[in-house]
Amino acid sequence: MFSVTVRDHVMVAHSLRGTVFGPAQRLHGATYVVEATFRAAELDDDGVVVDLGRAADVLHAELEPLRYRNLDDDPALAGMNSTTEVLARLVADRLASRVAEGALGRPAAALDGIVVTLRESPVAWASYERGLGAP
Amino acid sequence: MFSVTVRDHVMVAHSLRGTVFGPAQRLHGATYVVEATFRAAELDDDGVVVDLGRAADVLHAELEPLRYRNLDDDPALAGMNSTTEVLARLVADRLASRVAEGALGRPAAALDGIVVTLRESPVAWASYERGLGAP
Amino acid sequence: MFSVTVRDHVMVAHSLRGTVFGPAQRLHGATYVVEATFRAAELDDDGVVVDLGRAADVLHAELEPLRYRNLDDDPALAGMNSTTEVLARLVADRLASRVAEGALGRPAAALDGIVVTLRESPVAWASYERGLGAP
Amino acid sequence: MFSVTVRDHVMVAHSLRGTVFGPAQRLHGATYVVEATFRAAELDDDGVVVDLGRAADVLHAELEPLRYRNLDDDPALAGMNSTTEVLARLVADRLASRVAEGALGRPAAALDGIVVTLRESPVAWASYERGLGAP
Amino acid sequence: MFSVTVRDHVMVAHSLRGTVFGPAQRLHGATYVVEATFRAAELDDDGVVVDLGRAADVLHAELEPLRYRNLDDDPALAGMNSTTEVLARLVADRLASRVAEGALGRPAAALDGIVVTLRESPVAWASYERGLGAP
Amino acid sequence: MFSVTVRDHVMVAHSLRGTVFGPAQRLHGATYVVEATFRAAELDDDGVVVDLGRAADVLHAELEPLRYRNLDDDPALAGMNSTTEVLARLVADRLASRVAEGALGRPAAALDGIVVTLRESPVAWASYERGLGAP
Repeated sequence: MFSVTVRDHVMVAHSLRGTVFGPAQRLHGATYVVEATFRAAELDDDGVVVDLGRAADVLHAELEPLRYRNLDDDPALAGMNSTTEVLARLVADRLASRVAEGALGRPAAALDGIVVTLRESPVAWASYERGLGAP
Repeated sequence: MFSVTVRDHVMVAHSLRGTVFGPAQRLHGATYVVEATFRAAELDDDGVVVDLGRAADVLHAELEPLRYRNLDDDPALAGMNSTTEVLARLVADRLASRVAEGALGRPAAALDGIVVTLRESPVAWASYERGLGAP
Repeated sequence: MFSVTVRDHVMVAHSLRGTVFGPAQRLHGATYVVEATFRAAELDDDGVVVDLGRAADVLHAELEPLRYRNLDDDPALAGMNSTTEVLARLVADRLASRVAEGALGRPAAALDGIVVTLRESPVAWASYERGLGAP
Repeated sequence: MFSVTVRDHVMVAHSLRGTVFGPAQRLHGATYVVEATFRAAELDDDGVVVDLGRAADVLHAELEPLRYRNLDDDPALAGMNSTTEVLARLVADRLASRVAEGALGRPAAALDGIVVTLRESPVAWASYERGLGAP
Repeated sequence: MFSVTVRDHVMVAHSLRGTVFGPAQRLHGATYVVEATFRAAELDDDGVVVDLGRAADVLHAELEPLRYRNLDDDPALAGMNSTTEVLARLVADRLASRVAEGALGRPAAALDGIVVTLRESPVAWASYERGLGAP
Repeated sequence: MFSVTVRDHVMVAHSLRGTVFGPAQRLHGATYVVEATFRAAELDDDGVVVDLGRAADVLHAELEPLRYRNLDDDPALAGMNSTTEVLARLVADRLASRVAEGALGRPAAALDGIVVTLRESPVAWASYERGLGAP
């Protein structure tokens, strides 16, 4: 099994609802370092899972709606806590949609899955892994 | 599948028995950077695998018996080499016990497994992965 | 010349005023990884610039007023842009005050200066360096 | 399941064929940070998957044919693009051969698999994972 | 004294002349992680040394002539070894020219100097520091 | 001003004397990541401060007496606390002696100074900087 990973980052504000979050219930923020991994059992004719440059461009574009935003105002997150796990799933699902559209240059059926990791600090991160059918 | 990871570290002395270890048979030491990953298929009602702050606290507490210690004197390691692999399993098993007690705030049945990684230097590390039933 | 450095982090929300900042004029946030360096020409009788554990505690305490906060509401930053540079100076000045009070366990006259670095992402950071007299 | 990982690096020149690669079709180069992971369900009598020092030596030796080379001239890569994915597979297959020869000190049947990751920059990497039978 | 730093990277091929370089006399390559630091005694009216976004854009542009290139063919390096030190000076001198042209948005006289660091691997890097008058 | 830096690491045991050190008074250990920086105003005829490979070899050799050792038994540290600061000075002084002997391939007078940094964990490190005359 092969995989490729590209990394980018976004800087957002948000707050979390629930006493378990303690001071993180206040409006605060984060630099999320975002890693997106694409997996495939076989390489394409160019010898890649997907082109790293193309993957970086697609990840950058899919992060654009989050970039320099207050996630408490994001309709896509209405009624949900924008935890690191939830954001990882949101990004993975958006990337899966782009794969389904062919934006990565290979049919979705040629890829085995996606993993998205969001690092919120040097000591804490979360991941979401999914296949490439319906979420 | 979701996961969250928290990171901490401990500074210990120890020695290893066996000619394969060469100079590491002498009493020396290590800073182990410890990463503990908790996996779950579903998020809880707060939108998390487990709260990152709570996970960090539990990891810190479970590392306390190792912190600033000579592992050659640790009864829990008597008769065993305190290799990076063995220490990863020790920490993972202790975390699994805490999960079983409910210390992470979710029933063990809601979680799928634990991975513990110990980085002993920038160029060497070991991991142990286990489920959340009996070790 | 000797120095010691300790590292911590805070997660904050803020916005910046000025067209030069482009999308960072919107309310967003950051994880700031904060490094505080203390310099001294001579070690004390214990063989340290200042004790690393004590330095870590003082840095953690001085970051507390920023932790999980919206800096746009911080009176200490009223009328100023909370740029990475300005925050580095704020933290350095607060640490200098603590040094002047003896919180690091050595007289300020025994130390030569402080450098505070705030890393806002893997690709951008800022530092402020000062002596230990009046700011 | 246990694993151990060792890290090394090589500095190579190469070019890629295919319009998808854009400017990377030109002769350029890379520092590849190479991580090799060995997996085993059980530890050996010394308490290790394989000795980290031995694993580091074997990885270093297997990277030697790539070190300070122009990969466009490497017969092992003739007719192939030396993409990060292809290089990860090449290194993994060579390590698997060494395991089969007993160079890691355990029979191949005692190990479950190998993962090789090549990091070509702080924002892009690729991995190849395989078992320890025939490639 | 304040400073800001931005980071980028380039992937190049080159060879070095001189027996001291051993195998690095062969055509090989490197991923250079490039950090450019700008220093100023005072912040501007926006509260910055220079805007981090603008600094990142200027650094990216000045690295463009090196990106995905064989440095052995670069006229700017004719008759010189393209060592990490020489490349750090080349980049610093080009940034100094851009500062002199006002590309960073502040007069050169408001800045105190530039430091450029090129990291060629996790274990080796070089820096060049200069003022902002003639090189 | 130019500089080059090489990085290596050692794993040692030790204990510290003095109540300020709290639990670090017990026998424990550390992985020290060691960075040695050499500074020069001018490059030599090969275009380097000193050759990075040679610098790496010299650093590795000078760390050998510490490698896999209990520093409490090191005569060079008798009567001293082996704090991170003291170890940084020890390594810097030994490197300065090697420079004076010509081991780096340039006369000491051609170099301006040495900085040695020891990182004991991801959140704490110490440095010592000196010239190249008598310590």
